Amino acid sequence: MKKANKKVNAAIIIIGNEILSGRTQDINLINLSKWLNGLGVKVEEVRIIPDSEIAIVHTVNFLRKRFNYIFTTGGIGPTHDDITSKSLAKALNLKYGKHKEAYKLLENYYGPKNFTTGRKKMAKLPSKASLIFNPSSGAPGFIVNNIYCLPGVPSILKSMLGGLNNKIIGGKKIYSETINIKTVESEIAFSLEKVQNKYKNTEIGSYPFFKQGKIGVSIVIRSSEKKMINKCSNEIKKFISEKNIKILERN
Amino acid sequence: MKKANKKVNAAIIIIGNEILSGRTQDINLINLSKWLNGLGVKVEEVRIIPDSEIAIVHTVNFLRKRFNYIFTTGGIGPTHDDITSKSLAKALNLKYGKHKEAYKLLENYYGPKNFTTGRKKMAKLPSKASLIFNPSSGAPGFIVNNIYCLPGVPSILKSMLGGLNNKIIGGKKIYSETINIKTVESEIAFSLEKVQNKYKNTEIGSYPFFKQGKIGVSIVIRSSEKKMINKCSNEIKKFISEKNIKILERN
Repeated sequence: MKKANKKVNAAIIIIGNEILSGRTQDINLINLSKWLNGLGVKVEEVRIIPDSEIAIVHTVNFLRKRFNYIFTTGGIGPTHDDITSKSLAKALNLKYGKHKEAYKLLENYYGPKNFTTGRKKMAKLPSKASLIFNPSSGAPGFIVNNIYCLPGVPSILKSMLGGLNNKIIGGKKIYSETINIKTVESEIAFSLEKVQNKYKNTEIGSYPFFKQGKIGVSIVIRSSEKKMINKCSNEIKKFISEKNIKILERN
Repeated sequence: MKKANKKVNAAIIIIGNEILSGRTQDINLINLSKWLNGLGVKVEEVRIIPDSEIAIVHTVNFLRKRFNYIFTTGGIGPTHDDITSKSLAKALNLKYGKHKEAYKLLENYYGPKNFTTGRKKMAKLPSKASLIFNPSSGAPGFIVNNIYCLPGVPSILKSMLGGLNNKIIGGKKIYSETINIKTVESEIAFSLEKVQNKYKNTEIGSYPFFKQGKIGVSIVIRSSEKKMINKCSNEIKKFISEKNIKILERN
């Protein structure tokens, strides 16, 4: 795995009316973000936008210059509402048309007899696109510049990530430690802020939970240096112990 | 419920590093979007951003002029990483400080003895904020201009929506019908596009699913006019029947 010596970030664009309307629960963000974390890439913004050419063009063009990597999910299938490829071509001022390699791949996958007009649409891509192999079903994803276009179906998207490991040049890996405690946030807010102020470059998050009858707070420490995580963790555990707060076993 | 005679839209801003990192699965979007749908408000964009003042200020100021309603989730608790209230005051150029009504409410809730510094922070709001009642726990949400700030904990957020019904002036309700069929998208892409082209103002979405051994496509028709949904639905069912495609019982 190649490594950059600096921070590397990404934005995710989730394309789909069905996510915005609340009909479908997105789970691609979690899968993408965890996979990128492991490669040393931090997801710093996500936008969920409709199946609309103007929205895709605007969002892609705004984000692609501000983040190292852009991932899009959704809108690369055969139906009329799948407009990611065409919109991306427009955003980048590239030709949109038959992509020879994708055409051949799909023709082989379906066989010449079943390679229908609908399926041929999936072989239309922005010029210059390189393909992302899809081990679950025929249609490939594709890469143009720093933009990685993936399908919306979570199981298919997930199956395509492994093949991308060598194409992403990540930065330092981000480590994290979680301390779950039986308390409410206001009991620890002041002490936790003191630790955060002492370690400015370490990210300390506090997340209350109220689940299955359990009330508590998850404190999450994140840094590219394990040493800093240990230091913060020790200071946090010290005040937790002084306050007689119980540490919970919980993931 | 008050009604506007035009389309009413909303954007949601999900504030939280824990969502971006993939640590926590967001489920507030679905709850908010379904609730807003019922009031005749269409969610047209969602942004997920970090617990960062600059990100909050920029995002709020960009979206608030472009959408009728803005909802934020997260970042209104007592800890150092809860910076939504302060950032919002900055975005709107309002004073940030002790909100008398919130202070009184929280003091009553916790009792004077337990009203700690951490809890007092939750009474600091942008000036002019009006409160959103929280039936689950003490801390209120708040409204400034067209911006509705809600907490990140899903059960608490959900419990606060009922109290907001009368504050949202929605447009025409959006109805929808879903037809689930046993096929793949490419079999219906051409016929479906013909129907979409005939009914330009009706939104027809096609969503493949691969779950629990079942493969199929959900066709979702959305419109503010039930009549148009019925017309589209009949035409779609006609070509489905001609193609000998099976309709599935599935939600």
